[in-house]
Amino acid sequence: MKVWGDSRSGNCFKIRHLCAELDIDYQWQEVDILANETRTPEFLAMNPNGKIPLVDLGGGRYLAESNAILAYLAEGSPLVGADRYERALVMQWMFFEQYSHEPNIATSRFIIRYLGNPPERQAALAEKHTAGHRALGVMEQHLAAGEFMVGDRFTLADIALFAYTHVADEGGFDLQPYPAMRAWLDRVSSRSRFVPMNTGG
Amino acid sequence: MKVWGDSRSGNCFKIRHLCAELDIDYQWQEVDILANETRTPEFLAMNPNGKIPLVDLGGGRYLAESNAILAYLAEGSPLVGADRYERALVMQWMFFEQYSHEPNIATSRFIIRYLGNPPERQAALAEKHTAGHRALGVMEQHLAAGEFMVGDRFTLADIALFAYTHVADEGGFDLQPYPAMRAWLDRVSSRSRFVPMNTGG
Repeated sequence: MKVWGDSRSGNCFKIRHLCAELDIDYQWQEVDILANETRTPEFLAMNPNGKIPLVDLGGGRYLAESNAILAYLAEGSPLVGADRYERALVMQWMFFEQYSHEPNIATSRFIIRYLGNPPERQAALAEKHTAGHRALGVMEQHLAAGEFMVGDRFTLADIALFAYTHVADEGGFDLQPYPAMRAWLDRVSSRSRFVPMNTGG
Repeated sequence: MKVWGDSRSGNCFKIRHLCAELDIDYQWQEVDILANETRTPEFLAMNPNGKIPLVDLGGGRYLAESNAILAYLAEGSPLVGADRYERALVMQWMFFEQYSHEPNIATSRFIIRYLGNPPERQAALAEKHTAGHRALGVMEQHLAAGEFMVGDRFTLADIALFAYTHVADEGGFDLQPYPAMRAWLDRVSSRSRFVPMNTGG
């Protein structure tokens, strides 16, 4: 399996995280988002939506969307949840991540760290901070009642939400008010197979 | 099964659409988003993220996020895809819908139809139109090569993407440049069990 990703991207880190956890071999192809390398004709022929991560499963079969890739790679493993309801909750939190969490927390990090926090983005950043803290509050309330996001076991929901939560400080989010979340971040990064994200220089 | 939803919402319509297709019984509880009925203490006790649709599966088990609800209800049916790769593609398009499509197309419709298209939202609306047309272009290119989104069969990917595409005109999107998509909309709404969305007065 070949994976196209940018090492600074949390969405791409999810794939590395899962592959380490399940001991899946892959070939990594570094792609520079900031240099628009996902917008070349060659890349768009593989993923018309022009986004990473992207995986090549062989035989002309490509798969995009980080959380769909997680679901594909983990199919049949305990990481998808233990029963039908848990599988649905894992999906629920992965959609929560892409709709309520990532567009606020990852995008704030992008504005601050990669765009240099320009004045014309301050209004957008303020909105994203408000909505991002709302998402973090939902997670904090949930994690105060359990060790992991679903069924008190490590699942894809943890991998999906860990990706940008653990670098939320780079987006201007202070995690001090979220003690249950900070304990969960430690719990996830203390797992034996965990390999840290290389966020680049 | 009890479903909380606002009949004007495409995300809520997805659940009705699937239940009609699979002949699943449910009790509908109308919720008025514009009156903030998803932000009451009673509603937040069921879904701390304060969003609809929400389903009660009994025994204190609630499930949120429209596409996670679709996946739960359709588990074991042909609508999830025929094999592991098709199941992954169905997921891919559902995540595409929530990340690249809905935040632009549904939100444009919300600004125009429900907020009355106020002057202070025009800059946001222009950005959403650009990104929304990009998403529609990706769908058009894909549908030019097949009858449905995945595997030339009707799946959850069609239900998820139909919801806001078929009312995109209410968000200021002219679908004239998308002939393959318009043929697909007709194909979906011509299915024998299809019941139209009641978008309210």
